[in-house]
Amino acid sequence: MSGPEIERLIKLLARLPGLGPRSARRAALTLIKKRADLLAPLRSALTDVADTIRTCGVCGNFDTQDPCAICADPGRDASVLCVVQDVADLWAMERAGAFRGRYHVLGGVLSALDGVGPEDLCLEALVARASEAAVVEVILALGATVDGQTTAHYIANRLQAADVSISGLAHGVPMGGELDYLDEGTILAAMRARRPV
Amino acid sequence: MSGPEIERLIKLLARLPGLGPRSARRAALTLIKKRADLLAPLRSALTDVADTIRTCGVCGNFDTQDPCAICADPGRDASVLCVVQDVADLWAMERAGAFRGRYHVLGGVLSALDGVGPEDLCLEALVARASEAAVVEVILALGATVDGQTTAHYIANRLQAADVSISGLAHGVPMGGELDYLDEGTILAAMRARRPV
Repeated sequence: MSGPEIERLIKLLARLPGLGPRSARRAALTLIKKRADLLAPLRSALTDVADTIRTCGVCGNFDTQDPCAICADPGRDASVLCVVQDVADLWAMERAGAFRGRYHVLGGVLSALDGVGPEDLCLEALVARASEAAVVEVILALGATVDGQTTAHYIANRLQAADVSISGLAHGVPMGGELDYLDEGTILAAMRARRPV
Repeated sequence: MSGPEIERLIKLLARLPGLGPRSARRAALTLIKKRADLLAPLRSALTDVADTIRTCGVCGNFDTQDPCAICADPGRDASVLCVVQDVADLWAMERAGAFRGRYHVLGGVLSALDGVGPEDLCLEALVARASEAAVVEVILALGATVDGQTTAHYIANRLQAADVSISGLAHGVPMGGELDYLDEGTILAAMRARRPV
């Protein structure tokens, strides 16, 4: 059937999130068919990323420079730190364009189930950064999950010594969301946080 | 945000079947995080495939050798040819282990909508192979779609001059399939082709 080279490619592709064994096989076939058009560029893109992308020593973002473009940008507000779980969340915040300060990537959230403790997260560096004189606010932009909210409370406790105000993202009805399809928890949160129109 | 190197990787990953822009972003992040464990092996697997995989000049399969392992295997029945649309279908047939003859990959099916005509398929080579004295049967293992069945009829006409018997895969209830979830066409086909128990 397909040789060991193709089988190895399929196995590796299947480890990417969003691809199962069957779609990995389809992806491998597409790569073989579009050798010049897709396989070769993908290979060189992987080489580029492997050679150039570093983890920012300040915030944990991925970039070609360290400190990353956001940490190095003098136009960004150094007085506000936005704490996110993952680089994916940092990218989502940047796409939304809702924040002009700096970030701190935790690298996860506390989780008793997955065995993630405070020592597994980038917490000491966060405490040190939040204690700097320039920082006046820390925004905890963590997911509205049990683990995310547990982590937010833990961080809020840890930052009590630092002279910063701590805030979290608002909960409520997502834009374009219909009440009919929303869970009770979200409706309850939106009701409690209702605002004058 | 993410630099041009990462954006380029995301764009290329999004061209794989089964990955949209959002899952391509997640896949790129996973690759960056698991640099030694996933990115480097994937890069070398892509290099291996690009360097070693050829298209079999006889049947159209992908393999490290040309003719491919199936065409070169003297243990396989040279008297039966199984015509499939794509290499993926050839692999599926091999996984099922239902066939011990040789294959012919068409490279597509006739489609007025997609502008695929007979000249776009590997048809002349099929006619030549089917006309060889050794070949006694041609199995048209094409999809049970309008295009697949149109192509099967077209091929059957083209092969009339060759002295071969032509067959197609049986239609019916798939194994594990419940009647309740089946379309009317399949039930009708299964009813018409009913067999004594």
